[in-house]
Amino acid sequence: MPRYTKKDFPTHNIRRFLEPGPIVLVSSAHKDQVNIMTMGWHMMMEFSPALIACLISSGNHSFDLIRNSRQCVINIPTVDIAETVVKIGNTSGREIDKFFAFGLTPKPGTHVRAPLIDECYANFECTLADAGWAKEYNVFVFEVVKAHVATSPKLPKTIHYRGDGEFMISGSETKKWRRLFRPGML
Amino acid sequence: MPRYTKKDFPTHNIRRFLEPGPIVLVSSAHKDQVNIMTMGWHMMMEFSPALIACLISSGNHSFDLIRNSRQCVINIPTVDIAETVVKIGNTSGREIDKFFAFGLTPKPGTHVRAPLIDECYANFECTLADAGWAKEYNVFVFEVVKAHVATSPKLPKTIHYRGDGEFMISGSETKKWRRLFRPGML
Repeated sequence: MPRYTKKDFPTHNIRRFLEPGPIVLVSSAHKDQVNIMTMGWHMMMEFSPALIACLISSGNHSFDLIRNSRQCVINIPTVDIAETVVKIGNTSGREIDKFFAFGLTPKPGTHVRAPLIDECYANFECTLADAGWAKEYNVFVFEVVKAHVATSPKLPKTIHYRGDGEFMISGSETKKWRRLFRPGML
Repeated sequence: MPRYTKKDFPTHNIRRFLEPGPIVLVSSAHKDQVNIMTMGWHMMMEFSPALIACLISSGNHSFDLIRNSRQCVINIPTVDIAETVVKIGNTSGREIDKFFAFGLTPKPGTHVRAPLIDECYANFECTLADAGWAKEYNVFVFEVVKAHVATSPKLPKTIHYRGDGEFMISGSETKKWRRLFRPGML
């Protein structure tokens, strides 16, 4: 299991980790219940406040925990724990305690009661900003109120889902085209 | 410039190409105007109908073309044309004809008047399904009504944006964990 040292990260810059499209783990807590779900359908909506749209199917145990607590943590796992990520997506919090079952460490956040997953590369503490599309589309808009990101490595090897049990692992190749950008577009 | 041979692709399976989180090109047409924009903020919302949420900033020339025509094409470019993708994101359709300026080939679709970009790996013809969040968040929900995907290669080398002029190129490493999935979860 990876153990990361993390530091505070500016919330207006979390697109760095979310926009490339990784699978994330969403942790939540309500009353005496805690859960984790695997999520692939999310997008950035705004830099500041840092808004993220997420699709959380109403069939998930996490749906009610998040809707009722109006909080969650979005955690970014890396390929080291990819099998665990898949298992989390194929079990239900109604039946098992996923932190215990998968040997993950819940860590207290500073702004929300939902636990951070210590073994993930980054943890974004979120509060619910807009549930206007929750009923019709299962879409929640969260505001990231606090971000914790590992100090090393600089770029995480993230997991990207193609469906049908198949995953792309983020490439180590990075291209920089700053020179092609207009001022203000970076 | 890559030239792809394409065939029809089932719209309920487009998550295969969108969920990993690539930068896409959105082409649009309204009256005598045609445009292309680069877009990084999008997510799958439903398999069937195939719904995609997209954030299109109201400052973009494409915003009005798409809102008024209620159509667009979402095109998936590969690393071969990455520099062109960046240039498209750093110029305005108010000033130049991007198809002409960047030597791209507009191809007629079957369901929408917006042109397909022939040099892209995949083209998804879209109609506007919900503009309820267009004013507040610049978010549009599109339904993919027709999908065209290259017959080869099987997996495109897509471009994923990290911000600050920096891009991740999708890895060639693919992991399959079908055995870890519950029936019905694939």
